[in-house]
Formats: sequence, C-alpha cells, structure tokens
Amino acid sequence: MQDRVSPASVTPALRDLSRDHRLLSLNTATVRRQGDLAAIIAACARAEIPAISPWRDQVAAIGLDRAVALVKDTGLKLSGYCRGGMFPADPARLAEVMDDNRRAVDEAAALGAPCLVLVVGGLPQFSRPGSAPSNDIAGARAMVEDGIGALLDHARAARMPLAIEPLHPMYAAERACVNTLRQSLDICDRLDPDRTGLLGVALDVYHVWWDPELSAQIVRAGGDRLLAYHVCDWLAPTRDMLNDRGMMGDGVIDLKGIRAQVEAQGFAGFCEVEIFSDHWWSLPMAEVLSTCISRHRSVV
Amino acid sequence: MQDRVSPASVTPALRDLSRDHRLLSLNTATVRRQGDLAAIIAACARAEIPAISPWRDQVAAIGLDRAVALVKDTGLKLSGYCRGGMFPADPARLAEVMDDNRRAVDEAAALGAPCLVLVVGGLPQFSRPGSAPSNDIAGARAMVEDGIGALLDHARAARMPLAIEPLHPMYAAERACVNTLRQSLDICDRLDPDRTGLLGVALDVYHVWWDPELSAQIVRAGGDRLLAYHVCDWLAPTRDMLNDRGMMGDGVIDLKGIRAQVEAQGFAGFCEVEIFSDHWWSLPMAEVLSTCISRHRSVV
Repeated sequence: MQDRVSPASVTPALRDLSRDHRLLSLNTATVRRQGDLAAIIAACARAEIPAISPWRDQVAAIGLDRAVALVKDTGLKLSGYCRGGMFPADPARLAEVMDDNRRAVDEAAALGAPCLVLVVGGLPQFSRPGSAPSNDIAGARAMVEDGIGALLDHARAARMPLAIEPLHPMYAAERACVNTLRQSLDICDRLDPDRTGLLGVALDVYHVWWDPELSAQIVRAGGDRLLAYHVCDWLAPTRDMLNDRGMMGDGVIDLKGIRAQVEAQGFAGFCEVEIFSDHWWSLPMAEVLSTCISRHRSVV
Repeated sequence: MQDRVSPASVTPALRDLSRDHRLLSLNTATVRRQGDLAAIIAACARAEIPAISPWRDQVAAIGLDRAVALVKDTGLKLSGYCRGGMFPADPARLAEVMDDNRRAVDEAAALGAPCLVLVVGGLPQFSRPGSAPSNDIAGARAMVEDGIGALLDHARAARMPLAIEPLHPMYAAERACVNTLRQSLDICDRLDPDRTGLLGVALDVYHVWWDPELSAQIVRAGGDRLLAYHVCDWLAPTRDMLNDRGMMGDGVIDLKGIRAQVEAQGFAGFCEVEIFSDHWWSLPMAEVLSTCISRHRSVV
C-alpha cells in the first residue's frame, strides 16, 4: 500500500532567493523613463543584475545591432523579449501584422532571448489603430488564434518559442483579449497539441493573481509551458489602470505562494521584475534597481 | 431523422425593447449624487420607469418605513436590493457580519425586492476595515462561502433569494473575491445543489463581458439561477476603476448579444441600469433618466 499525499500537504522546495540576486531579471520597461536601453544595460551590469527582458521600442531606439553588441559585451542573459502580438486587425492589414510579428521573432533570436512574449491585442480598433471599430470580442479572439497559428512556422524556423501572456481582464478591450491562464493553455493545446516547446505562456502575477483557477491551471501548464515568470504587485487601491503597478511587497499578491506553485512544476528560469509605474519611473534608476534587488531577496 | 440545429444557428427571440421602457429598472446608485431616494423615486414615477433597485445607504438616509411607503404609493417594482455581503472579516467580527446581512435580507423583504444582491467582499482588511491585513485570497473565498451558507437559513425563512454578483477581477482585493460566473455557479452548486431558487447570480455586463467562458456559463446558470441582469457599458479607455462606467452604447460591450443569451435561458426580468460615473453624476437627474430610457430602447 502506497502512502498518499494530498497536493496541499506537499511543500515544494522554493528556490532560495535571499542570499543573492542570481535569479533576478529586469524587464527594461521598469526604468524606461530614466534612460535608454544602453543606460539600462550599463546600470544592470553595475548592479550585477544578470538578466533583462527588453522592449522592441527600446531596442529600436538604439538600433538592433548595438543592442545585440551591448548584451553580448556585458554578458547579460535575456529572460524574454517584449513583445509580439496585436493580432486583431482589418483583413487588409493582416500581412502587415504578420510581417511585424516575424520581425519581432527575428529580433528576439538576434538578441538571444529564450522566448518572444505575445501581448495578443484586443478589439481591432485598439490592437491596430485605424481598423474598423468592433465589439466582437469572440471575433478578436479568433483572429488572435489564427495569428499565433500563422506565426508558429516562422517561430519554428527561428527556434524561438512564443509565450502567450494572459493580460488582466481590465485590458480585454484595448490590449489583450486573452485574459486567463486557462484560455492561454486552451490555445496552446489546440495549436501545439504535441507540446513541442514552441508555444507556452508568460505568467505575470499582476494579471493572474486574482484567478480562482490559477493553481489548477499552473499545474495544467506544467514546467514545459511556463516560459516566463513576471513579478510586481497589485496595489490596493490602484489609482491608474496602466501605470500604477506596485513594487513587490507593497501590494496584496501572495508572491511566494504563486512562485512555489510555478517552481513545483519545474520552472527554473528568472523572476522578471516588470513594473509600469509613474511613481517608480520618477525615481533615479539606481534606486529602483537596488529596491528591486532587496525586494527580490526578501518578498519575491 | 430529426433536424439538427447547432446552438450558433439558433436566434433566440430577443424581447423587443424598442417600443417602450416597461422592462427598464433604475439602479438608484446611477443618480445617487443628484438627490435622495425620495427624489429618485419621484423622478422615476414622472419618467414612467417601472422599477428600481435601491441601495441600503439610500434607504437608511430616508428611513426604511418611508422608503417602503414611497415604493408602495408610486407602484414601483423592485429588480433587486443592493446589497448584502462583505463576508471576509476577523473571526471576532463574524457575528456583526451576519447581523448586518440578516438585516439586509429583512430590508429587502420589507421593500418587496425579488432578491438581495451580494457583493461578497475582498480581503478582510478591505471587506470589513479594521480586520487584520491578509493576502490570502483563497482564505477570503472560503469565508465568503461560509458566510453565504450561514445566511441561507435566514434567507429561506424570509423567502428572499440571494443573488451572488461576480465582480470584475480588478475589484478582487477590495470589493469582491468572487470574480467570474463560473466561480459564482460553483458556489451555488455546492450550497444549493437542489436548485431551490434561493441562491443564484446577479449578472452585470460590466463585470463579465470580457470572460471567454461567459456564454457557456450563462447556459450553465439557466433561467432559474439568473436572478438579476444589470447593464451599462465598458468605456475604452476607462479613466477610473470605480466611477467611469459608460452609458449603454458608449462602450465596447455587445449588449444585445449578451442579453440574447440571458433571455435564451428564460430570463424574463428587468434590465437594470447601474452606472457609477462621475460624468453621469454631474448631469441633471431628468437628463440621465431620459438618456437611460432612449438607450434602453435603442442599444440594450
């Protein structure tokens, strides 16, 4: 007769972050107002932050070749590249959408990113401005799935995994109509039933912490589909829907509890700090980075 | 051999709202800054709005007896009573929480409401201020279910159905940790497996329009568990998380599409307009009511 252990009684071995910040990655949007990507990379090197996840606009601003050279020279790793997506659009613009996304895949590959994060887009008039207004969110979702499906061939050729990021439901109209981990994994199951590793999810606690199905869907995802893990915090009250994310520890998210579940599935990647915040953008870059490091060691 | 008709090809007979506003109810929070409940009731009578859903604070401000008399004298119907709930709290305060909720049931019965709407509460420090801070949302959810379960006896004795209102996930911390229709119906199934009619849901399009499972969960609810239907619109952009709801037709929600699904389940109640909006609160009451009426007839 075997011992039976219920899932709740298993305490997964949480990785110890308290002694250093070897597992910290900085999403470069966190300090995007304080300097360009070259300045951010230099600051991360000084702070011994081992990894970043840069945004396309930041890369474009200094040039892809220079960004690649800086990443290589400093020995930084990447935890992702932000972002592809924004699939819903007028039919006449679909070629443009796919060109844009293929370029994102190529840039991610040039930079050595482990995955391209997909913010899939909301209704077409917001996803690709100028598209005809629509209130058909189911239609937008179908366009998203078609778009990801079409991008997979290019991603396969480039060996660049795509990480679908479910965004908080408050962004459903304007930014992403994929809003839960369940929905993301349903797409993965349909488009990549063989779990080739080419399609998975980017899990950002800000977007999913509230979900009553979070624990079950993390188990469903499994380590092979958990391609990225993002942290920040949910402030209560939240004063701005876009730019009032909290520093880890300043809000209500059970960060260690969620990380324990993610790591119990075998996730072994970086904890990527991504904070969109007028407050944190107003402070000196070095102060923000040192706060990220101390909170990473204490509360993440 | 029978004809087979797929669900998508069935066009349910949407009730015709275009010719009058017999199915319009006004949630009285919509004009709460323009006058007290007596003034709102008088304005609804003048505008031939047949039903209201009042809030407890508005009732308390003029006194329950006077509110009951005004409702009776004007012949208004109720589409609900707002609200019970706010269950998560320190253990020492649970008796106070239950007393408060039993009073809400009794007030709803005195006013002749068809259901008491439950906004279940978020984390205890926000649900019942002064409670110890917690980031245990699963614990808060357990407190909610215990609280509803405990309230059912009193609701049964008062013959007052309880309508769980799932609130948008952006309110999970501070207002309601029940955030999807699926989650609400899971609670209904556990606490009222025999579907006695005593427990159901209040479906507000603002809170649920984004949900990829909405259609399936409306079918699951069925007409007997759809106790109230609330309309407004989701503005894009939304400038304030609390008080920037849109007038029907001004946002991105597919109102007729959702109503068709609700009515296909047999829902035959009022369409209750509930708009929290600094903009609409700034306008004269009669103007707001006439806009509600015209939009009810054209876009709801």
